[in-house]
Amino acid sequence: MRVALGIAYRGSAYSGWQSQPGGRTVQDHVDAAISAFAAAPLKSICAGRTDAGVHALNQVVHFDTGAERALDGWVRGTNRYLPGDIAVQWSCFVPATFHSRATAIGRRYDYLLLESPVRPALESGLAGWTFRPLDGEAMRRAGQALVGVHDFSAFRSAECQALSPVKTMREVAIERRGAYWRFAFDADAFLHHMIRNIVGCLVAVGSGVRPVDWLAEVLDKRERSLAAATFAPDGLYFVGPYYDAVHGIPDRTAAMDWLP
Amino acid sequence: MRVALGIAYRGSAYSGWQSQPGGRTVQDHVDAAISAFAAAPLKSICAGRTDAGVHALNQVVHFDTGAERALDGWVRGTNRYLPGDIAVQWSCFVPATFHSRATAIGRRYDYLLLESPVRPALESGLAGWTFRPLDGEAMRRAGQALVGVHDFSAFRSAECQALSPVKTMREVAIERRGAYWRFAFDADAFLHHMIRNIVGCLVAVGSGVRPVDWLAEVLDKRERSLAAATFAPDGLYFVGPYYDAVHGIPDRTAAMDWLP
Repeated sequence: MRVALGIAYRGSAYSGWQSQPGGRTVQDHVDAAISAFAAAPLKSICAGRTDAGVHALNQVVHFDTGAERALDGWVRGTNRYLPGDIAVQWSCFVPATFHSRATAIGRRYDYLLLESPVRPALESGLAGWTFRPLDGEAMRRAGQALVGVHDFSAFRSAECQALSPVKTMREVAIERRGAYWRFAFDADAFLHHMIRNIVGCLVAVGSGVRPVDWLAEVLDKRERSLAAATFAPDGLYFVGPYYDAVHGIPDRTAAMDWLP
Repeated sequence: MRVALGIAYRGSAYSGWQSQPGGRTVQDHVDAAISAFAAAPLKSICAGRTDAGVHALNQVVHFDTGAERALDGWVRGTNRYLPGDIAVQWSCFVPATFHSRATAIGRRYDYLLLESPVRPALESGLAGWTFRPLDGEAMRRAGQALVGVHDFSAFRSAECQALSPVKTMREVAIERRGAYWRFAFDADAFLHHMIRNIVGCLVAVGSGVRPVDWLAEVLDKRERSLAAATFAPDGLYFVGPYYDAVHGIPDRTAAMDWLP
């Protein structure tokens, strides 16, 4: 039987999603929890591997198990074995043709950024920070250059394992709520560090350090060294993957109502 | 010279505001930071002592110092010595007649509560939680019984040091945003555990465990044992004190835009 779970987590305390020998990753906790609940060793496959310090609102995983458990048990039972900053939000039985990563037709990431002379405290680890006032209109115009099918090599980290740097960016939306900016990205898939690098460039434009056209130039030149510095992981949220509606996979969790 | 500071903090890691021998309190960090910046031992007085795990959006403190520092230095300089989850948000020079606690004419506290079958994860430590669906109208009607001048002994902890249990509740507002409820309380002052006890009672009414009139009865009987259990500190935020406008004390910080 194949089970899909939606998981929300605060990534601050973890070395990212992907299992590592040290065991300090979100996957290590999730796999230990589902294995404990199933009373058998299980290994999950996720829709999007998040980096150290990055959060998830609706990370989707799947795994195969012979353990017969009520659907709801995969939420409540698994959560008993998870630390307070990781929790399964929903569970689905899915056909063996469903694959959390391969079936996904797109992914959404948001970056939350505090614009303030003073650094975050209450929301420490949960927001990026800039002390420079940002021009939303300049950032919005610059960001539109990213929409469409592009080679995103300029925003790709050296460790990126993606087969191709060509991705389809469906939407870049930039909104402000009080002191917080929310940068929303919707694409078929993302390269390693791509959003944190893009946010660095958007902030360079928004703060007037670079002109609006500069982002299109950086994209065009496909040279990582031309782009701005990688922004902190603190403000990055994997909103979640999305699937064809036929699969019936939930695309919302309560945590989505939490953020600005 | 008397200095007033506005401080935001996430209380999760601390044993409350008030200095203790162990040094694991917010005040211990704040006093150490202002002392380091002033290069002289300083001790702050706050507007509202928060309990372990309780957060503050605009805690106001004052202290007297002979150290000559630029106004802005009290923000930037002090923050260099503070941990990531505590940060000074603003500074003011105030006359010696200003006292953060005694001059305050009121205080606001908010309680944030997740209503969901599943516990918080991303917002762990930052929100209370109930798995029971809540009736907002029932809670609002019940909460109105608290408005006015009342003896709040029914919601007072055994350790409360307040001289009188009679307080003036100016407003109780209950709003919902998605899966989160925000309970806002405005009073001249509060008793120890008063809000967490009131929230416990409001949730008992909202979930149908108790009738709407029950809260007025509990208040009227002034018997702590009749009220519901004390709710977790996780969801409690000291929004801040307020003062007569003549003092020019800021009543907003960026963190106020963060929460639902």
